[in-house]
Amino acid sequence: MKAVTAGSTYASATHIVLPNNTNTLGNLMGGQLLNWLDVVGAISAHRHCRRVVVTASVGKVAFQKAIRLGDIVTIEAKVSRAFTSSMEVVMDVWVEDHVTGEKRRHNEAIYTFVAVDQLGRPIEVPELIPESEDEKKKYKGALRRRQLNLIMAGKMDAKDAGELKSLFE
Amino acid sequence: MKAVTAGSTYASATHIVLPNNTNTLGNLMGGQLLNWLDVVGAISAHRHCRRVVVTASVGKVAFQKAIRLGDIVTIEAKVSRAFTSSMEVVMDVWVEDHVTGEKRRHNEAIYTFVAVDQLGRPIEVPELIPESEDEKKKYKGALRRRQLNLIMAGKMDAKDAGELKSLFE
Amino acid sequence: MKAVTAGSTYASATHIVLPNNTNTLGNLMGGQLLNWLDVVGAISAHRHCRRVVVTASVGKVAFQKAIRLGDIVTIEAKVSRAFTSSMEVVMDVWVEDHVTGEKRRHNEAIYTFVAVDQLGRPIEVPELIPESEDEKKKYKGALRRRQLNLIMAGKMDAKDAGELKSLFE
Amino acid sequence: MKAVTAGSTYASATHIVLPNNTNTLGNLMGGQLLNWLDVVGAISAHRHCRRVVVTASVGKVAFQKAIRLGDIVTIEAKVSRAFTSSMEVVMDVWVEDHVTGEKRRHNEAIYTFVAVDQLGRPIEVPELIPESEDEKKKYKGALRRRQLNLIMAGKMDAKDAGELKSLFE
Amino acid sequence: MKAVTAGSTYASATHIVLPNNTNTLGNLMGGQLLNWLDVVGAISAHRHCRRVVVTASVGKVAFQKAIRLGDIVTIEAKVSRAFTSSMEVVMDVWVEDHVTGEKRRHNEAIYTFVAVDQLGRPIEVPELIPESEDEKKKYKGALRRRQLNLIMAGKMDAKDAGELKSLFE
Amino acid sequence: MKAVTAGSTYASATHIVLPNNTNTLGNLMGGQLLNWLDVVGAISAHRHCRRVVVTASVGKVAFQKAIRLGDIVTIEAKVSRAFTSSMEVVMDVWVEDHVTGEKRRHNEAIYTFVAVDQLGRPIEVPELIPESEDEKKKYKGALRRRQLNLIMAGKMDAKDAGELKSLFE
Repeated sequence: MKAVTAGSTYASATHIVLPNNTNTLGNLMGGQLLNWLDVVGAISAHRHCRRVVVTASVGKVAFQKAIRLGDIVTIEAKVSRAFTSSMEVVMDVWVEDHVTGEKRRHNEAIYTFVAVDQLGRPIEVPELIPESEDEKKKYKGALRRRQLNLIMAGKMDAKDAGELKSLFE
Repeated sequence: MKAVTAGSTYASATHIVLPNNTNTLGNLMGGQLLNWLDVVGAISAHRHCRRVVVTASVGKVAFQKAIRLGDIVTIEAKVSRAFTSSMEVVMDVWVEDHVTGEKRRHNEAIYTFVAVDQLGRPIEVPELIPESEDEKKKYKGALRRRQLNLIMAGKMDAKDAGELKSLFE
Repeated sequence: MKAVTAGSTYASATHIVLPNNTNTLGNLMGGQLLNWLDVVGAISAHRHCRRVVVTASVGKVAFQKAIRLGDIVTIEAKVSRAFTSSMEVVMDVWVEDHVTGEKRRHNEAIYTFVAVDQLGRPIEVPELIPESEDEKKKYKGALRRRQLNLIMAGKMDAKDAGELKSLFE
Repeated sequence: MKAVTAGSTYASATHIVLPNNTNTLGNLMGGQLLNWLDVVGAISAHRHCRRVVVTASVGKVAFQKAIRLGDIVTIEAKVSRAFTSSMEVVMDVWVEDHVTGEKRRHNEAIYTFVAVDQLGRPIEVPELIPESEDEKKKYKGALRRRQLNLIMAGKMDAKDAGELKSLFE
Repeated sequence: MKAVTAGSTYASATHIVLPNNTNTLGNLMGGQLLNWLDVVGAISAHRHCRRVVVTASVGKVAFQKAIRLGDIVTIEAKVSRAFTSSMEVVMDVWVEDHVTGEKRRHNEAIYTFVAVDQLGRPIEVPELIPESEDEKKKYKGALRRRQLNLIMAGKMDAKDAGELKSLFE
Repeated sequence: MKAVTAGSTYASATHIVLPNNTNTLGNLMGGQLLNWLDVVGAISAHRHCRRVVVTASVGKVAFQKAIRLGDIVTIEAKVSRAFTSSMEVVMDVWVEDHVTGEKRRHNEAIYTFVAVDQLGRPIEVPELIPESEDEKKKYKGALRRRQLNLIMAGKMDAKDAGELKSLFE
């Protein structure tokens, strides 16, 4: 199975915030953004493994300054690292004000997807090759996040998570 | 401001998984579930503070066994703890098989909401009173999760997070 | 086939009224509410018989005071009585004002569902056991409504509908 | 206020049944049809009074033979009678099989709408003039239905509903 | 294969412009209207050939005066001419102001559909018989438009398109 | 008003074809694609002028080989030329097979947008600067298309459309 460069897993999507996406203050609802992120993330993971992928987990997502009706939301995704049958995807959310056109970074989100066969069973995926400095940093961070998740899920002992443990020393 | 019991913040919603909610394997897409969770969580937080609420963050959500087209998904939410202007909501997801009627617990999700005024500025919310054993456990866990989030966001030093630190000793 | 208690057929759903659910006055459109009722009613009927159910009919539904954008609508459903392959479901609609949090009963709706096999043919369902006073009253009313419907459909002679006839004497 | 002919209140709509409109058997869900009926009925009532209209009530709707994915559903509506500020709309539902093109009448539905001003208060509407035999029959039936509804709502004594009472003698 | 009259391919649909159909100025978005046109056009083409039809192309569509939230949009479609396996459908868009009820013609659109079998391969369709003056005019125009499209697609030499060429002499 | 490079008007969007986007053969419906194109085109035009834009017209769009359920559709848009208050946007549609990952160019679409003020009146937009060979070719083509449209709309005499006329000589 041939390894894949992070750059070739790039995916992006752009949305205009419509009335039905907003709450009574006219701001984009968080759940709608989470839904958009899931679709872009799945496309990025699919470009890594070229198989059907399903969402395995969503990491912490923090929302920032409100996104308003009519604003343009752009999501950019790349796989940060692959583990056996799972792929971690890191995404950036950008917002353009629909009046001034000013563009700002809104937040970051990290989703994990699993490649499955037609019966829904996990299947192996290629390794990821990080190339740029930023890709290498995210590749390294992915391992730390995986350790934290395994501890949280009770599948790893915190004392064995070397890299993570150092944070508390 | 009068404190509110956890029980009075209870909210639930039930959905039948429709074709448009599914991927090409006929399974519920993760992003759709995240969207449903956001709406129920917001209703629960609204029942706590009776103000407009906005999603502040989503904690780690792990998806389990696939949820299929036609299955019935029930989400149950209660506020676990309130902090100044924010409320943590803990939600359980239940799935009923549309053929056998068998009901199973799918997963848990934790969202945080902030109460805001008409200009979107944070406003104070009442305290939460946990009553049952389970509510008290979640109330305590909410503090630990908040410490972890503050550390992750670089707003707290890991060494000061007493309760959390003990996990690594 | 084992009879089922009314309580075990309970189903509920909660919605926030979104922009696309409203007319030009910013009020929930009746057709949207009828659609939400259909889904909750079907879930309740499914919990009674654990089979695929299809909507057979909708009884008179009267809408009251307008429900506004952002209000929270809760629908509660229970099967009131089962007849051979059909189930009558009685639903209550509750509305919480999104500003004051005030909760009021909006209206009642009665839908009838039929259990079907994979080819869409009616199949037998269990009997319903009413337990509370309210359940017993609705159980009795279901027969009266069924008689009225049979007369209206020309399948029963009004003179034979004992209970109903008494209304006009 | 100038009376309006029934013919000038005619409205129709045509839909193709899409995946998201169907249940797990691939049949149109009843709630979706009720929603479509509400929109066409509102257009017909609007054409009668040229004011904003809101749904006041839905009469008994019985569903017939299943409508399938891909079938073409046509709804035809006309106001049958106007009362002070309300209008009764009678609708026919037609279904064309998407393979054979065969067209059949599916069912009939009766909705009542109220004309309102910008504050949602009822306002007077013109009288309706029935012209064809069918329009005159529906015009007469509308009074009988109104009497039945008033009795059901406890606003009229069954003994005073002359025309209706005769059914039970 | 029996020829079909233009009149028997008539199809229409009516929509109320909802919040989610509008841009930030509260006007119907062009893409939504194009989508509605596609569905009505497909129904008209289906009525011509009684087979599954797919959209082959959309001709130039020009939008006029803005259509506003709450306005009623009616689309009327008829097949103008059939060519082997394709059908050209000409549609008129009408708009009723939701306040004044004033009705105006908005624009015209021309879509082409192809009849296909279950594997998606083109299949022959009946000829169209234009009857009214207007139908005959559109029938003639359809040939001119087809020549223009063939030239534009590089499949016909402009010098051979007799009727079209005369425009430039 | 400062001229804008074609490159800075680039916009793209990516969609997974969901069940509700497909016809009974499981292929993407043309109207849905036209709707997606409209949104991406509007974003591109907005990036050119940073004002609210409305769709003025859609040029001929021809659909090719069917796009299937689950396929990934990517739309790429750039403004090709600006005229007073209007902008022509040329878009490419790419499709990735959801099983093989094979990527193919599906078709091209050309939409025209107009910049408007808060009352919906046209306002002036900056000029476009084409830089690459491809951008220059599209810039030149835009004038030819505009001449053709003016002739078709009866606002220009075909004999005066120099560049266009040469096609027929």
